[in-house]
Amino acid sequence: MRPSLHRMFQARSVAVVGASRDPSKTGHVILRNILEGGYRGTVYPVNPRVDEILGLKAYPSLRELPEAPDLAVFVVPARLVPDLVAEAAELGVGAAVVISGGFREAGRGDLEEALRRTAREGRIRILGPNCQGFDYRPNHLCVTWPPRRVSGSLAIISQSGTVGAALADWAEEEELGTTVLVNLGNRVDLTEIDFMSHFARDPSVGAVVLYVEAVTNGRAFIEAARRLSARKPLVVLKGGRTLAGKKASQSHTGALAGRYEVFRGVCRELGVVLGESLEELYDAGKMAVTCGAPAGPRLVVITSSGGSGILACDRAQELGLQLAQLPSDAVSSLRADLPSHCIVGNPLDLTGDASAERFERAARRVVEAGSCDALLLIFGDPIAGAARAAARIRGMARGTVVICCFLGGGSQQAEEVRACHRSGIPAYPTPDRAVAALAHMWHRGHANGEGGVACLT
Amino acid sequence: MRPSLHRMFQARSVAVVGASRDPSKTGHVILRNILEGGYRGTVYPVNPRVDEILGLKAYPSLRELPEAPDLAVFVVPARLVPDLVAEAAELGVGAAVVISGGFREAGRGDLEEALRRTAREGRIRILGPNCQGFDYRPNHLCVTWPPRRVSGSLAIISQSGTVGAALADWAEEEELGTTVLVNLGNRVDLTEIDFMSHFARDPSVGAVVLYVEAVTNGRAFIEAARRLSARKPLVVLKGGRTLAGKKASQSHTGALAGRYEVFRGVCRELGVVLGESLEELYDAGKMAVTCGAPAGPRLVVITSSGGSGILACDRAQELGLQLAQLPSDAVSSLRADLPSHCIVGNPLDLTGDASAERFERAARRVVEAGSCDALLLIFGDPIAGAARAAARIRGMARGTVVICCFLGGGSQQAEEVRACHRSGIPAYPTPDRAVAALAHMWHRGHANGEGGVACLT
Repeated sequence: MRPSLHRMFQARSVAVVGASRDPSKTGHVILRNILEGGYRGTVYPVNPRVDEILGLKAYPSLRELPEAPDLAVFVVPARLVPDLVAEAAELGVGAAVVISGGFREAGRGDLEEALRRTAREGRIRILGPNCQGFDYRPNHLCVTWPPRRVSGSLAIISQSGTVGAALADWAEEEELGTTVLVNLGNRVDLTEIDFMSHFARDPSVGAVVLYVEAVTNGRAFIEAARRLSARKPLVVLKGGRTLAGKKASQSHTGALAGRYEVFRGVCRELGVVLGESLEELYDAGKMAVTCGAPAGPRLVVITSSGGSGILACDRAQELGLQLAQLPSDAVSSLRADLPSHCIVGNPLDLTGDASAERFERAARRVVEAGSCDALLLIFGDPIAGAARAAARIRGMARGTVVICCFLGGGSQQAEEVRACHRSGIPAYPTPDRAVAALAHMWHRGHANGEGGVACLT
Repeated sequence: MRPSLHRMFQARSVAVVGASRDPSKTGHVILRNILEGGYRGTVYPVNPRVDEILGLKAYPSLRELPEAPDLAVFVVPARLVPDLVAEAAELGVGAAVVISGGFREAGRGDLEEALRRTAREGRIRILGPNCQGFDYRPNHLCVTWPPRRVSGSLAIISQSGTVGAALADWAEEEELGTTVLVNLGNRVDLTEIDFMSHFARDPSVGAVVLYVEAVTNGRAFIEAARRLSARKPLVVLKGGRTLAGKKASQSHTGALAGRYEVFRGVCRELGVVLGESLEELYDAGKMAVTCGAPAGPRLVVITSSGGSGILACDRAQELGLQLAQLPSDAVSSLRADLPSHCIVGNPLDLTGDASAERFERAARRVVEAGSCDALLLIFGDPIAGAARAAARIRGMARGTVVICCFLGGGSQQAEEVRACHRSGIPAYPTPDRAVAALAHMWHRGHANGEGGVACLT
C-alpha cells in the first residue's frame, strides 16, 4: 500500500526547500502564502544560505530538520531536485510538491525519470514537477499562488497552473469558494486519476472540475471517472480537442492527446459533464456544488427583463430544455396576484419595476403549481434584496432547482451574486450561461438516471 | 424633412416631465443622473406639485418653461403621455423620450397609437415608450440608469433595457467605455434603423453593437445595415432565434420575429457580425472599436501558460483561423533570444516565469518575421507591466492585430485589463473568448473584402 494523499492534504508539517527572502521569488511567495493562509501546522523554511526567513528559523537541509515533515515543497533548480526528493523519501517525508520547471518540457527527461524512480520505490508521492502546487482549504494549506481565502466545496484539478488559477480566481471573486485546487504539472507520479479517486471520498468535496490535456491512462481514467461520477458531479474540459490543440499539447506536456470524439462519447456514457470552454467548465461546476442537477428538463423563467427572458428561452430550446407550460389555475392566480402590466407566461415577465417581493410572490405561485424542475430568476437592473428573495424562494421550492442571473445592475449586482453564492444558489452573468449550465447538469442527471435534486452543499 | 436626431443627442436643454423628489422613483434617478453626469445644458424638472427638485426650480408644465427644450423625458403614467407628448410637439420640443411603460405591452395599444400619430405629424421624434432611455457621452447626457462615466467609441443599441445596460456595465467596468447607449423600448417612432443610419455618420462612433428581437422593417434594416457596415463594424445579437424565443418575443414586444436562418444569411452577406450570446456580442464589439479586423486568418499565440495556449489553438481551429507557421529564421532567432526552457512554436510558450520584457522580445521576433495577421498575448498569472508591454508590441506590430488575454492573475489582472483598454488593445478573460472575437472579426473582414487593419480609434 502506497502512502495515501492524506499526508499531503492534511499535512501537520511542511518544509519549503528553496524558501527565499526575496519577495519576487516563488520560494518566498509560497512560504508567505502558507503562513498568511492560516495554516496551523509547523513550517520549516529550508535554505543553506540564510538563518531566518519571514520570522522563521531556516534550516540548511531537510536532514537537519527536527522531524521528517509530512510534506516538502521544492522550489530549487531542476538538476538538484531528484537527489533532494530521494533524500526526502529516505527521511520519511510523505509527499513532495515539485514546483520547479526544467524537466521533460525543457528536454531533461532524464531528471524526470529519476524522480519517477523515487516515486516507484513507494515511500513518497510526488506532485509535479513543473506545477503550480495546491491549495487545501480544510487544512488552510496554500502551497500555490495567488493565495486563496474563500472556502467552498468545489474541487479543481488542472493540468495547467494558469487554468486552475483562473477557475479558482473566479470562485474566489464571486465567493463561491473552493475546497481544493491541485495543479498537476508533468505528472511524474500523481495524476488526475489519483485525485479523482481521492476526492470521491473527501467529504469536503461537493463536485470536481477537471482541466486535462492528455489522459495518462485511458482505462484507469474511465474507472476513476465512473466511480467519482457515481458519487459526485464531475465536469471536464479537454485541451487538445483539435489537431492544432493536440500539437500544442504535445509540445507542452510531451503526452499525446487521444481522439476527442472518443473522449466525448466516454464522458457522455459515464454522466461526466463535458464543457467546451473554460467558462462552461466553471459554470457547470458552480451549479454542481450548489443546487445539483434538476430532476427533469422543465424550466420556468421569471424575469424583470423581457429581452433577457427571450435570450434564456432561445438558449433553452437550443440546448434541449423545455419551457414548462404553466397550468391554467397558476396562470389565473398569477394574473390575480400581479400588476396588470406583467406578462403571465413562460417567461414570466414581471417587467422593469419588479421588486424582490414581486419575484417571491410570483415564484410561490409557480412552485405551488408544481410544473417545473428548474426555476431561473433573472434580475435585470439593480433590485434591492434580490439574493435574499432568491434564498426564500429556494426554501419554498423543494424539489426544484433555483438558479439566478444578474445583469444590467451596475456595481450593485456583484454583491448580490456573492450573497447568492453564500447561501448556495448559483448566480450567472448572462441568461445564456445560466441556461447552458442548467442544460449541462440536466443532461448529466439524465445520463446518470438520477431523480430528484442532488443538493450537495 | 423630419427633425433630425441631433436635437436628441446634442440637446442644449432637457425637461424631465415627472421629475420626483423621492430618490426611489425613476423620475428622480433620471434627473440626478443627468445632473451628476456632467451635462452642461439647461435642465428643467417638470412637476406641478413641488417648487424645487435637487436644487432646481420645478415647473408645473412644459408650457410654463422659459423655452421649448430640445429634449423632453417623460416619466409619468402612460395614460397622461399621449397628450403631454402632443403638447411638447406643439411647443416645438425636438425629441421625446418616453420611459413610462403601460402601453402595448400592457394591452394599451390605443395609447401607443396616439403617440404614433403625434410622431407621424413630423414635428417631434419619439424614443420608446417603455424604454430605459439613452446616454450620449459627447454631450455628457445620461438619460438612463445606472449612470455612465467612461467614454469610448462603442455604440450600443438595444431593444431591451437590461441587455443594453448589461453591455454598458461591462464596458464601464473594464474601461472600454461607450459613446452612446440607446434603449429602443416599444419603437413607436424611432427604431434601430434610425440609429444605425445616424451612427454611421456620427464621428464619435467606432462600431455599433445591436440587440434586436424583431426587425421592424426587413428591407430598411438591410439597407441601413449595408450602409453602416460599409463604414463601421456592426455586431448583432438576435433574440427570438428559436420557436420558444419567438413566442416570448411576441409577448414582450408584440412584434413577430422572422426566421433566424434568413436573418443569419443576410448578415453574413452584409459583413455584419452575428453573435450567438450576449458575451459574444460584447467581445466582438470590443474588438471592433479597438483593433478592428485582422487582414488575414493567420494567428500567432504567445503565452506564459501552456494550457491556455492549447485552449486558444483548439478554439482557433474550431472557428476557422490558422495557426501561422513561424519561418525557420524566426524560430532560430527566438531560440537564441529566449531561455532554453521556452517552447518555440505556435503557440510560443514563454512559460510561467515569463516577464513582460520576455513577451516584448518574443513578439518583436514574431512581428519581424511578418508571418501573422493577429497576435494573441496570453498573460497567465500576474505579470507586472503586461499592459504596457502589450502597448509597445502593438506599436511595433503595424499591420498586425494585437489582442490580449489575462487569466489566473487574481486581483491584479483587472487593472491590467483596464490599462489595455485605455490604450486601445482589447483584453479578454479566457483564450476561448479572445479567439472567438478574433474569428468573428476575421470572417467579417473577409466577407467585406477588407484588407489591412481598420484601426477605428
